[in-house]
Amino acid sequence: MYIENFNDSFYMQRAIELAKLGIGHTKTNPLVGCVIVKDEKIIGEGAHLKFGENHAEINAIEDAKNRGEDIKGATLYVNLEPCSHFGKTPPCAMRIVKEGIKRVVIGTTDPFEKVSGKGIKILEDAGISITEGVCLEECLSLNERFFTYIKKKRPFVVFKSGMSLDGKIATEKGESKWITSEFSRSYSHELRGKLDAIMVGIETVLVDDPTLNVRHGKYRVNPIRIITDSKLRIPLDAKVLSSDLDSIAIIATTKNFNREKFEKLKKMKNVEVLICREKNNKVDLIDLMERLKKFNISSILLEGGRTLAAEMLKNNLVDKFYIFMAPILLGSKGIPAIGDLEIENLKDAIKIRDMKCEKLFDDILITGRCD
Amino acid sequence: MYIENFNDSFYMQRAIELAKLGIGHTKTNPLVGCVIVKDEKIIGEGAHLKFGENHAEINAIEDAKNRGEDIKGATLYVNLEPCSHFGKTPPCAMRIVKEGIKRVVIGTTDPFEKVSGKGIKILEDAGISITEGVCLEECLSLNERFFTYIKKKRPFVVFKSGMSLDGKIATEKGESKWITSEFSRSYSHELRGKLDAIMVGIETVLVDDPTLNVRHGKYRVNPIRIITDSKLRIPLDAKVLSSDLDSIAIIATTKNFNREKFEKLKKMKNVEVLICREKNNKVDLIDLMERLKKFNISSILLEGGRTLAAEMLKNNLVDKFYIFMAPILLGSKGIPAIGDLEIENLKDAIKIRDMKCEKLFDDILITGRCD
Repeated sequence: MYIENFNDSFYMQRAIELAKLGIGHTKTNPLVGCVIVKDEKIIGEGAHLKFGENHAEINAIEDAKNRGEDIKGATLYVNLEPCSHFGKTPPCAMRIVKEGIKRVVIGTTDPFEKVSGKGIKILEDAGISITEGVCLEECLSLNERFFTYIKKKRPFVVFKSGMSLDGKIATEKGESKWITSEFSRSYSHELRGKLDAIMVGIETVLVDDPTLNVRHGKYRVNPIRIITDSKLRIPLDAKVLSSDLDSIAIIATTKNFNREKFEKLKKMKNVEVLICREKNNKVDLIDLMERLKKFNISSILLEGGRTLAAEMLKNNLVDKFYIFMAPILLGSKGIPAIGDLEIENLKDAIKIRDMKCEKLFDDILITGRCD
Repeated sequence: MYIENFNDSFYMQRAIELAKLGIGHTKTNPLVGCVIVKDEKIIGEGAHLKFGENHAEINAIEDAKNRGEDIKGATLYVNLEPCSHFGKTPPCAMRIVKEGIKRVVIGTTDPFEKVSGKGIKILEDAGISITEGVCLEECLSLNERFFTYIKKKRPFVVFKSGMSLDGKIATEKGESKWITSEFSRSYSHELRGKLDAIMVGIETVLVDDPTLNVRHGKYRVNPIRIITDSKLRIPLDAKVLSSDLDSIAIIATTKNFNREKFEKLKKMKNVEVLICREKNNKVDLIDLMERLKKFNISSILLEGGRTLAAEMLKNNLVDKFYIFMAPILLGSKGIPAIGDLEIENLKDAIKIRDMKCEKLFDDILITGRCD
């Protein structure tokens, strides 16, 4: 077992910081940062900044060379195991060997079958000393989306909801603007910019006509919008179909769709219609997750409504929660945040692990995970 | 304005600590602690330990005398303004003057009309130097029940509920044992022992048949049990009517009660039946609060069910919340913690102030206040 070493943690923290430069741009690739250290001095830094571009290790090596530093005998810190396969770029493990690096410190191994443990083997076979598991929790958390995408073979799904303390998202009459504070809503917008796609059910589009764009926060990349709409009831002038946005809208439907609407949608700019399998008259969500692969969507922000949220939960398709709770009570006639989960016995309740809470001005933010 | 002084805060903290010795025993009286300090040394300490017994100031003075200390010229710290009226004991303010105390440091003034400001006036008229507002927030919080009881002329009501993250207290089928963790339930029991009474609706008695006694925690005083039961549907063998407990059970009913049941209940040991005004076929809760005065109940733990909780909230009869949230979701068909609040517009939502959250092992505890 690795006993945390202060210097190793320090440089790994810097690697994690660099990795975050890629947030919103690496698509299905992981966030990776790399630091090269020699004689207790950082001589090179790099990150994987964009899908299809250089890996972090290569950028750090190039950076050291540009600075005129001698890499030979240095220690390389990277939050994820260096790759061993020829993908869009040549394997980083081989480059590390070639450059004469003496020691490699790794956060987590790569869950990707083609790579897992193989990168480390290449390094070890070349006589490089390896330390694994430095800042492990943080490295796992940094790439939670990527790990889910690889292990579960589907996008990482984050369910976000703003509700009253008694779990309601609107009054009986449907008034919902606004339950949570401006700060919480701005925080939500930041989440939108950090994930590849936003997903809502057709009812939400019909009732609220949301744009689902990113209006606040530091990550102003508009995510792909996904709308589940088994019968294609979406109005052609729905804001979510706006072609002004720099991303596409995906309408997930079933064979029961409205043919005329389908033809019209197909002609629209930046709109894709996905015909999915049907399950109980609705879009089969597991099939939809499969079909989203071709769009390189590794993470989805599920914003509701209650029926879609319940279906996603019942199909074990939610990985993480962000629940913003406002300091109000709306009572049992209010509209619930989550629809029918068909739970008869407590043992079948949907379990949340690692539940955490924090105060966000007047609201409370509760986060957690599902297995 | 008082600028916090380290020494004053230190001694006031000790007074607050002493005041807490009275928790569970002072009934409608406030919690009060007192410290007498001379030459930077504590020479006497006291608290109001039990309803009807000595006030804290008197106990502190007696303590100093028993220690053989000379009180003349000392400073007296007390969390609540010394009393000025002849009640069950002679006025403390006069005794303080008589003993030659030079300075009095007070947390909060007394909200009780007969006393408010008058105690301070007696002291000032005698040339005693006064400092007010030391550790003000803590002193207000310490006696929140007492202040509510005096200002609102009714008991301080704490609503407690254990629910899922989406606001449900049971599955559709009614399974509710146990939603929250053992630790949260034990914490709840401690609340029971700290308040004068526990209140539930008849539905809770019919469904759960609770004992409503104190089984865990450090305050093992059984509170008075209050059951709202407009038609006297309570079974005579309900556990809540058990005469084994060292407190009474109060059944609040209306003129629509079952006469035969009434006669039987009247004969039971430790059972009181209160005939209250009727409102919408139910017990008029405002009237009930009024009638509880004769039992010296200054604080109530409202444990549900959802209908009673909603009625208490609608009547502005809830002062504080303790919501234990378990890391589970039960979905919209689960049984809600709070019934219909008849809220059509968001502006009419029940507002919670000073909302705080903390992790309690796997659960989250959310606390807050209503105005």
